[in-house]
Amino acid sequence: MINDFIYDIPVRIYFGRDQLKHLGAELKKYGTRVLMTYGGGSIKKMGLYDRVVKETKEAGLELFELSGIEPNPRIDSVRKGAKMCKEHHIDVLLAVGGGSTIDATKIMAAGACVDHDPWDFLDLSKRVPIERALPIVSILTLSATGSEMDTAAVISNPETNDKIGRLDDILSHLFEVYFNMDQDLYMLDCFMEGLMKTVIRYTPIAMREPDNYEARANLMWASSWAINGFVNGGKRKAWSCHPMEHELSAFYDITHGLGLAILTPRWMEYCLDETTVSKYVQFGTNVFGIDPTLPPMDIARQAIDKLSDFLFNTLQLKRTFPEVGIDRTHFGVMAKKAVSGGTLPGFKPLQQADVERIFEMCMTA
Amino acid sequence: MINDFIYDIPVRIYFGRDQLKHLGAELKKYGTRVLMTYGGGSIKKMGLYDRVVKETKEAGLELFELSGIEPNPRIDSVRKGAKMCKEHHIDVLLAVGGGSTIDATKIMAAGACVDHDPWDFLDLSKRVPIERALPIVSILTLSATGSEMDTAAVISNPETNDKIGRLDDILSHLFEVYFNMDQDLYMLDCFMEGLMKTVIRYTPIAMREPDNYEARANLMWASSWAINGFVNGGKRKAWSCHPMEHELSAFYDITHGLGLAILTPRWMEYCLDETTVSKYVQFGTNVFGIDPTLPPMDIARQAIDKLSDFLFNTLQLKRTFPEVGIDRTHFGVMAKKAVSGGTLPGFKPLQQADVERIFEMCMTA
Repeated sequence: MINDFIYDIPVRIYFGRDQLKHLGAELKKYGTRVLMTYGGGSIKKMGLYDRVVKETKEAGLELFELSGIEPNPRIDSVRKGAKMCKEHHIDVLLAVGGGSTIDATKIMAAGACVDHDPWDFLDLSKRVPIERALPIVSILTLSATGSEMDTAAVISNPETNDKIGRLDDILSHLFEVYFNMDQDLYMLDCFMEGLMKTVIRYTPIAMREPDNYEARANLMWASSWAINGFVNGGKRKAWSCHPMEHELSAFYDITHGLGLAILTPRWMEYCLDETTVSKYVQFGTNVFGIDPTLPPMDIARQAIDKLSDFLFNTLQLKRTFPEVGIDRTHFGVMAKKAVSGGTLPGFKPLQQADVERIFEMCMTA
Repeated sequence: MINDFIYDIPVRIYFGRDQLKHLGAELKKYGTRVLMTYGGGSIKKMGLYDRVVKETKEAGLELFELSGIEPNPRIDSVRKGAKMCKEHHIDVLLAVGGGSTIDATKIMAAGACVDHDPWDFLDLSKRVPIERALPIVSILTLSATGSEMDTAAVISNPETNDKIGRLDDILSHLFEVYFNMDQDLYMLDCFMEGLMKTVIRYTPIAMREPDNYEARANLMWASSWAINGFVNGGKRKAWSCHPMEHELSAFYDITHGLGLAILTPRWMEYCLDETTVSKYVQFGTNVFGIDPTLPPMDIARQAIDKLSDFLFNTLQLKRTFPEVGIDRTHFGVMAKKAVSGGTLPGFKPLQQADVERIFEMCMTA
């Protein structure tokens, strides 16, 4: 059954080599007082900071700054930003960075319009709806989360070990939607396969040649389209790896993308059976070009192997929990929290015991 | 060289089985006086007309009507619509139909805001820019032109045998962008291949089983994405078959889609050589699953054959000019008009003599 859906992505994107020339005019649409948010010093090293200062100055804008937004952005940074917006009567926020900076900026923009703590938007026991927010312009420096083109944000609260939201890593976003027995538009499966092929083709090139424009451009646009909502069509958004991983990076200081990379092939292995094998066959033949005349289970296993090879050999990501400092101590509590909203109803329904078994599979290569 | 581009498609789409319930609320965003435009009686036969009347009445809207918009919409219908908008102080237009109705409605919406003849927007010697237009809501009844999600319109002026614009037929839209030696994002080629596979898979199903929702839904969404601008990325929009075909359907009473179907395989054959063969190989292997180990020229010829088989056998479209009543009488003048803006600089540059040769290839099967 193909579900109904509403498509509505009213984001304007300037894509290409010299688009910063539009920055001043875009910001001015919303006012004159700009709060620029960013993380560490990388935007200064690459000259982007100076360029932003120059463009905003030339456009006659007044620039305020909030730096130090963490890779897993913390609620304290968000609080600080919301406060600055109020104090300085900010008209528009300018997020310069990757998904973390943009995510944090979204909640600041909403926090600037209310009197309560911004954490109330995220706290599962409250989930205060966001009704208004200041406008946001972003300059994207990292292809991964797609935050520049969607409405989501992941924020950590170190006091409670909570990490709430639903974002990250390009391939993983696609897998969560693609590996799903919900019927949906074939056309969207084709698009997802195209995005996966793009990532698999260009990531190694971008690693070898960081200045390769073709590779970077393809990865950047693919990351936006992996998560802006388009490929979901009318599918229920029932994800599996993300809820599992959010617990890992709430308890341990690893990046969300790395946690997903370790979990994903194990999750695929765990979910493979006669009822799901057709999806692995589609994936293996269309994305990795595996011979479609082989027996379905063989194609499925080859597909998982090829994915593991890509993640752990080509990209040289760490392969197991012990390699990133995760042991069995918190398996129980992390698995319990991962299913705290109920069974994970995605590709194959997962309960606490399933999640623990998948964690256990991550202990060895 | 991958060109820079701006992505900006601020269209909200309600996609699915029972989305007409949103109609009243959407129209009311823009006002209370609605001009409904449509073609022949098919929307009455299918009950859509009654549903629109019911929904608008329940929403307290005042409904005006303009029917009889032609399959190749004529400038006189546009003039009539623009006049009605002014006379009745219309707030929003509601186009109910396929690309022709939506195209005509777009120019009416612009014509309603100016004092000059709406043809001035299209007349190549004037090309008055469109600066304002009334808002348009559309109910799409036909998957083909993608007019619901772009800014283009094709209007005929029977007095001058002119047909101006740049739209139609799903596959053909994709071919014009795909078969192009301009380098662009690989990701977008993957998307186009996915759209082509979708059309080739579902068109025969929709013909056999007109009520097959899966087929219709895939075709409808694919037709929007084939032409909303997304797959173009930063490519120069240098099309070939469309300018050639626009002359055919300006001189003869054939639909644009049929003209394109006859022209396309001949155009592909005409453009095939050592400098272009790589694109045919990519197309043949990814879209038709042709064995990639064959010699490139063999793959290219097989790909053209498979496309012809799809168009003329599976879809049972007419294959030659004589079958649709076109003879050599106007070849010279049509070819001359097709290149009146200069050489067609697309996949392979075409001058008047090339166009005449391609027309000649259409005389026999």
